[in-house]
Amino acid sequence: MAEIPDSHPRKRSLLSREKIVQGSEKGLLAKSAMIAHGRGEAFDYLLGERTSESAGSAIRESVARLRKADKPVISVNGNTVVLAGKGALRLAAALGCAIEVNLYYRTPERVSGLLSLLEEQRSSVLMEPEPPGFEGDWLESVRRVPLLGSSPDFRIEGLEGPRSNCTEAGIGSADSILVPLEDGDRCEALVNLGKEVIVIDLNPLSRSAKMATVTVVDEVSRAFDAMLAELVANPNCAPTEWDNSSALRSAVVEIGDYLLSKS
Amino acid sequence: MAEIPDSHPRKRSLLSREKIVQGSEKGLLAKSAMIAHGRGEAFDYLLGERTSESAGSAIRESVARLRKADKPVISVNGNTVVLAGKGALRLAAALGCAIEVNLYYRTPERVSGLLSLLEEQRSSVLMEPEPPGFEGDWLESVRRVPLLGSSPDFRIEGLEGPRSNCTEAGIGSADSILVPLEDGDRCEALVNLGKEVIVIDLNPLSRSAKMATVTVVDEVSRAFDAMLAELVANPNCAPTEWDNSSALRSAVVEIGDYLLSKS
Repeated sequence: MAEIPDSHPRKRSLLSREKIVQGSEKGLLAKSAMIAHGRGEAFDYLLGERTSESAGSAIRESVARLRKADKPVISVNGNTVVLAGKGALRLAAALGCAIEVNLYYRTPERVSGLLSLLEEQRSSVLMEPEPPGFEGDWLESVRRVPLLGSSPDFRIEGLEGPRSNCTEAGIGSADSILVPLEDGDRCEALVNLGKEVIVIDLNPLSRSAKMATVTVVDEVSRAFDAMLAELVANPNCAPTEWDNSSALRSAVVEIGDYLLSKS
Repeated sequence: MAEIPDSHPRKRSLLSREKIVQGSEKGLLAKSAMIAHGRGEAFDYLLGERTSESAGSAIRESVARLRKADKPVISVNGNTVVLAGKGALRLAAALGCAIEVNLYYRTPERVSGLLSLLEEQRSSVLMEPEPPGFEGDWLESVRRVPLLGSSPDFRIEGLEGPRSNCTEAGIGSADSILVPLEDGDRCEALVNLGKEVIVIDLNPLSRSAKMATVTVVDEVSRAFDAMLAELVANPNCAPTEWDNSSALRSAVVEIGDYLLSKS
């Protein structure tokens, strides 16, 4: 791809697209991953490619809940690792939690490819500045993030086949799960197990968005960055009574307003 | 892919997705074609996967203009052929016009692959019933549709590189061009040449949508089917003074209404 000038208003979106094309060519992503990414592009376009006000509230709520959880975990799929693996690692380091690679279309090759990519991303994160205001040993926190998923030894009840597989140390025993770009069935199964499920999904009408405890309607890499910033800035924020349906309605209204403003 | 039951509310969308995945695996589509399809899926979802009222008006206007044109042509890219090549052939047969394969990321292999696929699709169309009410020799009309694009001998002024290439017999000499899923730059260049440009685009905010003479905000295979039905039902419809900006605003409002109805 040609170099995109810094001044290009959609540079970040075009770089993300390129990451997905490359991840797909490397065999890290399922066949339909590029189509899923395109859907995300369209919804993000309709959000103005920015973190909306309602997404900001959902981000604060999510951080408060993940902080308060006994055992949070970040569940990632191929698109999440390719688009925002470093953001996931930084957030996991700050939360002191594990990352589990958990794929709807699971193959051992893709799981191990994504775990290797996460290890490469960890090396990059270790060379980058620590988040301003982080209290603790940042490098050690990054080094310690467990990367799970290669040896599933647990099943998510209520699901059939390979997509039910997960690890006991990760999703199996977690009380709060941050799952970007999750499938609706699996989101529902996790909620039915009594877990707190925090979804990042650009489509506020999706089944995952509607099933989740808290839905962050935002692009995954922006959401991770904003969650980390929030966690460092407000380490003592507390969960509220959260009305997710009302938050989703706000997200829809924001999209509608954006559409009308551009027409 | 598993068989999708007829009762599935999104069967048509899932079948289209599968066609794009298969077309991509056969090398018929550019790298970013699946991402573009995903964007289309999202916008179509927001239209309720149906031809909206404003799209119906744009379809009537488009048909009237294509009928009245001295030399209309249908310009198709990879996604259009894969998703709706048969619809393009039927519409071209009814209009008595050519189809030109014209690719933004042009390679001789993909052009010839898409022309071969169109020939296969022509064979299928010849085995299927003729459109009810069609006056004339349907089979002969289908057989006679010129399939252009293999030997570009003309350049679209105002564009650089391979994407400026087209045929003189097709786009080069046409006065009215139906271009589904067109790129904004090329749409603009065609308009600047004084041609009437009728775009089919699911994103009412895209640059193509805004540049076009008439924009049909609809999924390409539904739009082709509806255009054929309109052409056969109202062969004498006449163009109107068409306010495309106002039509696009209506499309945006319809999306907004749909979003709010679902939230």
